[in-house]
Amino acid sequence: MKKYWGSIAKSLTPYQSGEQPKEKMIKLNTNENAYPPSPKVKEAVDNLSVNLRLYPNADSDDLRKEIAKYHHVLPEQVFCADGSDEVLAYCYAAFYYGMNEASDSHGFSAEVENCIKFPDVTYSFYPVWAQFFSVPVKIVPLLDDFTVDVPNMCGAKGVVLANPNAPTAIELPISSIEKILRKTHGIVIVDEAYANFGAKSAIPLLMLHKNLCVVRTLSKTHSLAGLRVGYAIADRNLISALETVKNSFNSYPLSTLQQLGAIAALRDKKYYEDVSFGIAETRAYFVEELWKMGINCLPSKANFVFAEFVNPTGAQVQAALKERGILVRRFDQERIKNYLRITIGTQEEMTVVVQTLREIL
Amino acid sequence: MKKYWGSIAKSLTPYQSGEQPKEKMIKLNTNENAYPPSPKVKEAVDNLSVNLRLYPNADSDDLRKEIAKYHHVLPEQVFCADGSDEVLAYCYAAFYYGMNEASDSHGFSAEVENCIKFPDVTYSFYPVWAQFFSVPVKIVPLLDDFTVDVPNMCGAKGVVLANPNAPTAIELPISSIEKILRKTHGIVIVDEAYANFGAKSAIPLLMLHKNLCVVRTLSKTHSLAGLRVGYAIADRNLISALETVKNSFNSYPLSTLQQLGAIAALRDKKYYEDVSFGIAETRAYFVEELWKMGINCLPSKANFVFAEFVNPTGAQVQAALKERGILVRRFDQERIKNYLRITIGTQEEMTVVVQTLREIL
Repeated sequence: MKKYWGSIAKSLTPYQSGEQPKEKMIKLNTNENAYPPSPKVKEAVDNLSVNLRLYPNADSDDLRKEIAKYHHVLPEQVFCADGSDEVLAYCYAAFYYGMNEASDSHGFSAEVENCIKFPDVTYSFYPVWAQFFSVPVKIVPLLDDFTVDVPNMCGAKGVVLANPNAPTAIELPISSIEKILRKTHGIVIVDEAYANFGAKSAIPLLMLHKNLCVVRTLSKTHSLAGLRVGYAIADRNLISALETVKNSFNSYPLSTLQQLGAIAALRDKKYYEDVSFGIAETRAYFVEELWKMGINCLPSKANFVFAEFVNPTGAQVQAALKERGILVRRFDQERIKNYLRITIGTQEEMTVVVQTLREIL
Repeated sequence: MKKYWGSIAKSLTPYQSGEQPKEKMIKLNTNENAYPPSPKVKEAVDNLSVNLRLYPNADSDDLRKEIAKYHHVLPEQVFCADGSDEVLAYCYAAFYYGMNEASDSHGFSAEVENCIKFPDVTYSFYPVWAQFFSVPVKIVPLLDDFTVDVPNMCGAKGVVLANPNAPTAIELPISSIEKILRKTHGIVIVDEAYANFGAKSAIPLLMLHKNLCVVRTLSKTHSLAGLRVGYAIADRNLISALETVKNSFNSYPLSTLQQLGAIAALRDKKYYEDVSFGIAETRAYFVEELWKMGINCLPSKANFVFAEFVNPTGAQVQAALKERGILVRRFDQERIKNYLRITIGTQEEMTVVVQTLREIL
């Protein structure tokens, strides 16, 4: 029953996010940060000096300045929106939307592939935005070891890469990103949602590559999934395209509370260095314990690991963990159906997970 | 210099919001509510019992329940997003996007006009979303008295109406909305951003008309422009279309803080009844004072008035007010170029505006 739905809405298969449990569980299925946000965030929101009756700053100017300082770029190179999902949606709108139209072919030589490319195993929202904006896609399968097939990722009008990739957690070396940047004719989006847990950022490449757009979020690095703040860092010409589409969709994406909370978080660098260090330490412990149980786990630079379970299968282990109050995520995709994506929780939580896995296996 | 911009992004002319002044001014240019939000909102945000490290509820379930209670509808008839601008953007995506494609013509007879309609003088974001989603538009000029031309508004696939209209502030009677609903083949969006200041809501019409979608915001009625919370109320089939497009663009539009703040505001009915009453009282005072000065002002059911200045002209009066620390809004559109849209501020602010206008005229 889809009476009155528009033809695009009828055709959409939306993104499915991880389950949000009602009961108290060890929740390791949506890659939230194990630690609470800096107490400065609550302070900023509590001591709210501005009046909520007024519109927020539409372009998040103070927040952009803070992000610029954090990353050693200019405020004009920063674009903010409601979580990195919304930033990515705006990136598709600004750089790829209209790609299938004849008017877009100007300036591209015949050998350029008229599509964007991303891996078969990656963030499952990428194909959804392509569908939403009718962007032609070419899926480039990851190699057997789940690393990116760099040569085949080249030659298109656009590329979308998560780095570290999700759900594999594997880091793509900066040299590979540079190769792809040189051989892509339009914009390469590098989605660094899982930055700060050990992987190198592509931001320094902005000096040389005007077709790079790095996307980040405070959800994981700054324990602020509940605040919804994401941003893009790119050449100011690209930021101006993002502002144009934002102001043609929703001029005020970030509430005053979100802007103030985000600024406070970015300022508390020391706190978050400790958080990232804690996650990396617990990850090392957990990977070693998995290894002792004979569980293969891809090399992780993120706040989660991607581990293979053959006998019992991934689905069986997931169900057994859930029965015991532990939520992890599995994807119904042939190639990775026996893998579980397990968020790195606190040391206490991961000790429980290890004990529980020992019982199950 | 629009290198790397997508073809749609290149073609967009974004919405221009009103100026946000840096200095202290009497700010009557963006129709914010004159009164602060309920103190319960700050309380809700201060006593934040949930952890911001976790994702918010993606579908704003508790907030939808509260809105449903407020409007005497079912939670399944409510859709929430980041301000009514974002709700409206999602409405275009869900109901109109793809209208110009052949696949959309099924089920429509030949005499249906393949477009959406809205007045020439109305919220200036309506044509921007049409451009963003490539929706064909037919502009139906308002009649000479600035009321809606109801017969000519009929016969299309969709209609977008602000009620009260902006920037005219004039209410469209419910009987006219019903006529348009009966003679529109797709969705009629009624944008009630300026509800609660005297106009009747179209929500009761939902009982009989499955092609009605009412859009609201807490920005004006609840003094919460800084919080960014808007919603749609419609048949559950339409809400399901809105959820589908939302989950294909940005699954988590509202932060935890926004959801909690909005719930607290909606619960404090008494406080906001007094606020709306105060605005209506000050509006009556201001309209009478304008009348005494010989200034024509359209009949207002909103928290602003639309007043005509011929000699000196609208532009001259706007400039003179600005010099004296008072910001009001003017639109560069031939038909209304001598009108100023003046937000109703507090009684004290409007007394200053009246004195200042007397000096200028």
